[in-house]
Amino acid sequence: MARQTRIQAPKGTRDLYPEETARVRYIQKAWTDTAVRHGFEEIEGPTFETSELYAVKSGEGILGELFQAFSGKDPSDIEKVKATGRAPFALRPEFTPTLARMYAARAQQLQKPTKWFTAGPYFRAERPQRGRLREFLQWNVDVIGDDETPSGRAQADADCIATCIGLLESLGVESSVVKINVNDRMKLDDLLVSEGVARERMSEVHALLDRAEKMPREEWQRQATALGISPSMGTLFVREWSETEANLDEVIEQFKRYATTSFQKLKAIRESIVAPLDEFGISEKWCRPSLSIVRGLAYYTGTVFEAIADGERAVAGGGRYDNLIELMGGPPTPAVGFAMGDVVLGLLLEDKGLMPEGAALLDAISAPPASRRPEVFVLGADDDASDPLVRRLVADLRRGAESERYKHDSLKAWDPRRYEPATGGVRPMHARQSYKSTRNLKKLLSDAERQFSRFAAIVHGEDRVQLRDLDKREEITPKDVPGLPDSVAEFSVSPDSEVYVGRAVQALLA
Amino acid sequence: MARQTRIQAPKGTRDLYPEETARVRYIQKAWTDTAVRHGFEEIEGPTFETSELYAVKSGEGILGELFQAFSGKDPSDIEKVKATGRAPFALRPEFTPTLARMYAARAQQLQKPTKWFTAGPYFRAERPQRGRLREFLQWNVDVIGDDETPSGRAQADADCIATCIGLLESLGVESSVVKINVNDRMKLDDLLVSEGVARERMSEVHALLDRAEKMPREEWQRQATALGISPSMGTLFVREWSETEANLDEVIEQFKRYATTSFQKLKAIRESIVAPLDEFGISEKWCRPSLSIVRGLAYYTGTVFEAIADGERAVAGGGRYDNLIELMGGPPTPAVGFAMGDVVLGLLLEDKGLMPEGAALLDAISAPPASRRPEVFVLGADDDASDPLVRRLVADLRRGAESERYKHDSLKAWDPRRYEPATGGVRPMHARQSYKSTRNLKKLLSDAERQFSRFAAIVHGEDRVQLRDLDKREEITPKDVPGLPDSVAEFSVSPDSEVYVGRAVQALLA
Repeated sequence: MARQTRIQAPKGTRDLYPEETARVRYIQKAWTDTAVRHGFEEIEGPTFETSELYAVKSGEGILGELFQAFSGKDPSDIEKVKATGRAPFALRPEFTPTLARMYAARAQQLQKPTKWFTAGPYFRAERPQRGRLREFLQWNVDVIGDDETPSGRAQADADCIATCIGLLESLGVESSVVKINVNDRMKLDDLLVSEGVARERMSEVHALLDRAEKMPREEWQRQATALGISPSMGTLFVREWSETEANLDEVIEQFKRYATTSFQKLKAIRESIVAPLDEFGISEKWCRPSLSIVRGLAYYTGTVFEAIADGERAVAGGGRYDNLIELMGGPPTPAVGFAMGDVVLGLLLEDKGLMPEGAALLDAISAPPASRRPEVFVLGADDDASDPLVRRLVADLRRGAESERYKHDSLKAWDPRRYEPATGGVRPMHARQSYKSTRNLKKLLSDAERQFSRFAAIVHGEDRVQLRDLDKREEITPKDVPGLPDSVAEFSVSPDSEVYVGRAVQALLA
Repeated sequence: MARQTRIQAPKGTRDLYPEETARVRYIQKAWTDTAVRHGFEEIEGPTFETSELYAVKSGEGILGELFQAFSGKDPSDIEKVKATGRAPFALRPEFTPTLARMYAARAQQLQKPTKWFTAGPYFRAERPQRGRLREFLQWNVDVIGDDETPSGRAQADADCIATCIGLLESLGVESSVVKINVNDRMKLDDLLVSEGVARERMSEVHALLDRAEKMPREEWQRQATALGISPSMGTLFVREWSETEANLDEVIEQFKRYATTSFQKLKAIRESIVAPLDEFGISEKWCRPSLSIVRGLAYYTGTVFEAIADGERAVAGGGRYDNLIELMGGPPTPAVGFAMGDVVLGLLLEDKGLMPEGAALLDAISAPPASRRPEVFVLGADDDASDPLVRRLVADLRRGAESERYKHDSLKAWDPRRYEPATGGVRPMHARQSYKSTRNLKKLLSDAERQFSRFAAIVHGEDRVQLRDLDKREEITPKDVPGLPDSVAEFSVSPDSEVYVGRAVQALLA
C-alpha cells in the first residue's frame, strides 16, 4: 500500500453527503412520481455505450465532446487507443440514442404509443461552471410511436409538455417564474423559405438562432442578412428576444403589415402549437409560442420547446424527432421527448426558497410514491364528443385538486396537507387513457386490465361517469363510497363536484 | 447523418425495459428501505474517479482490471493516453475508496459513528458470465468511526450483519437458503502463526483460502503444506468445506485433540464473532462461524463475512477495514461495511419464486418507503442494565412484527398484509439508538431531536418504557394511543405485549 495521501473527486463531479443526497432524491422523486402519474413507464440503459452509437446520430465530431472509455484488461483495445487516441466506448452524454436503440430492437412487440421515462447519470467533457457539471442527473420523458396523424402527434407533444409542467407544479414552481417556449422547427423552416431563405442553409440559420443570446445584436443582424433573412423577419426575432413578455400573438399582428402568406403561416404555427395545449388547460399560463427556439441538436424534426426560468436559465428542453428510430435500425417511427437536468433545477429551487430543509426534506422524500399501477383508466363511451372530456379528466386526475385550505395558507409544495381529503383536496393520481381507436368497451376495458389499472372511469358526459373496480370486477356507485352522497347515481368529471370521480377513487383506495 | 444501422448495447451491460426495470427497482427499494430503517444515511459519489484513487488502495496493478476513461476534449489527456495506454480516470469498480475519500475530507465534522449507505452503478472490465456483468448495481453499507473499544467494534460489525440479514428477511429469503459465514481475519492469522505459519506469508495463505473452491483438493493440500499449514489445520479447513452444515463449534471440538493453545484461540474467535450477534437475536439462525472466509481484498483487518446462497453463490460480502480512512488522508478511523450486487441477488429471488410479477411487482415498488426521519429513537435510562434491552428493542422495531394471520397464511414478502395492524402486525420501522456515552437524558433527547426523530422511547425495564412525541414535545401514555388499553401506565419492550412501544408508534403515526 502507498503513503498517506489526500485525493480529490474529479473536477466537475459531486461528492453528495447525506443532506445533498436528500436534495437530489427530492428532485428524483418528483421526476419519477410525475412521469408515473402521466402514464410513463421506467426504463434504464447502460451508463456507457459504444462510441459508434453517438457517431451514427451526430457524426464523428461528437467523440471530441465525450468522455471516452476502454477496458484496461483488453490488449487490443489498449493498442487501438494508443494508436488513435480514440476509445471504443463513451460515457453517455444524453439518453436519446440509447432510447432509439432500445426501441428499434423491440419495435414490433411494443405498444403504440410507447411512453418511457428514465432518470440517471450523464456525462459531458465540458469545462465545469455554475449550473453545468461533468457528471449530472437527467430526467428523460418520451412518447414513441404515436398514431402518425397530425392530431395524434399534437397530443403526444402536448403530453410531454404537460408532464414537464406537471413536474414544475409538483415542486411549487409557478408560471410567473418559468415559461415554456414552444416552436415548430419544420414550419419555421417553411416560413423562412417563403421569406426567401435558401433551404440548404437552414442548419446555419438554426445554429445562428441558437447562438443569438450570446452575440451582440448587430453582429447577429449582419450574419442573418448574409443568410438571406429579410430585415422584417430579423426584426421579429429581435423583438421576441427584447420583450420577454411578448408572445407570438403580438408578433403575428406585427407581421400582418409585411407579408400576407407569412402572416398565414405564422397563424398556422400558433394554431398547431397552442390548440392541443389548450385542451390540457395549460397553454395560457405556461406556454409562450416562440419563433426563435430551435434547439441545438440536429435530429429535431418538428415541435421544439424549452422551459426557461427567469427569462434566461434553460431548465428543460426537447422536441420531436421523427427520423431517429429509423436511423437506429427500427421502423419509421414518430417520437417526441424532453430532458431536464438536476443541476439548474436544483439551483432554481434553492434560489426561490422551494427546496425543503431538515425534517421537512426527510419527510418529503419519505412520502408515498405515485402508484406504478394506473389508479384510473379513463375511457370515452360511444361517441367522439366524450374525447375532450376524457383528456380533461385525465389531466385533472394527474394534477390533483388542492384543498380549499391550501388556497388560503399557501402551503409549500412538499406539504402533504395541500391535498388533505378532509378539507376537500384530491391527491394527484396515476391516470391513463386508451390510445386504441376502437370504441368497443369490452376491448377498452381489457386494455385497462392488461395495464393493471385499479379502476376504469367510463365517460358519457360531464356528470355521467361510470366507475368500475377492475380488481374486484364490479361497478361502483356513489353509495359504495364512504362519505359520498347517494342522491345521484353516477360520478362527475368536475373536481368541484362532490361526486368527482377522483374524490371517489381516493376514498376507495385509502 | 449516417446510413441505417443496428447497434447493440456494450457486452455485459443491460437494456432494462419496463418489467426488468421494475425488478431492479424492487431490489433497490428493499436496499434503501432496509438501510434507512437501520439508521444509515444515504450518500452518493462520482461514477468515475481519478485512477490514482484506486492505485493508492490496491497498487498500480488494479488499473488493468478497470474501465479507464478520459476526456475527448482535452488534448493533453489524449496525448498521455496515446503515450502510455493509461487514462486519468476510471469507472468505479467498488465504492469503498470513494467512501474513504469522502469521510477523510470531512472527518472532523462527522458524527461518531457515521452510518452511510449508497446504491448505484459499478463497472468491472471482466468477461461477462451468469451472475457477473460489466455494469451492475451495488448496495454499500458502512459504519465508520465506532468507539474503538472491542465492544464498540463488535456492535458495529453486528450492526452491518444485522442490516444484511434485515435485507434478506425483507425480501422473503430464509435462513435455510442463505447463511452468513463469519470469520476474523486477524485472529485467524494469530492462530495460523501459533500453528507455525510465517506471518510474512499470510497474504499468500489468504489468497490460497480465497481460491480453495476453484482448486482440486490435493493441489490445495500441497500448496497449503508448502506455506507451512500443518496437516491438522489443513484438515479443519477441508472439513469446513466438505460439510456445509458443519459449524465452528464442531470444528473447535475436533481441534481440541490437536493443540490446546489453538483450541483456546478458536474458542476466542467463536466468542468474539457470535456474542454480539446473539444480542440481535440473529446468530443462531443465520450465522455460521467460518475459518476459511478471508475475502479477496487486501484492506480487510478483522471481521470478514460473506452471505452464501445454497452453499455456493456469494450474495454479499464485507468486513472491517480499520486502516483505509487513514491511508486516504483522514485520521485513524475504524470502519466496517459490506456490499451486495443486484445481479446474483436477482437470480436468487427469481430461482426461489421470491420476485413478484405483474400487478404485485408494481404494487410492491409503489409501497410507502421507510421514513427517512427516525420514527423511534431508543434511549437507555440511567443504568447499564437497560443497554441490552435498548439493542433488542431497536432490532425488533427495525424488523417489525408479523401479524398472527401471516404466520398461518405464509403471505409473500411483498404483501403488505403481513404487517396489518388489525391482525396484530407491526410494520418495520426506522429505529435508532444513541451512541453517546453520556447518561444525561436531556443531552440524549436533544441528540434525538437533532436527528429529527419523531418519538423517543426511554427504556427503564422490560415493561417500563416512556414514550415521548418529539415534534409535539409531550409525553405519551397508553391512554393517548387509539386502541390501546389504559389499564397500564407505561409501554413495553416486548412485541407480544398489547402495549408494545412499536404498536403505539404505529398507531400514532397512522
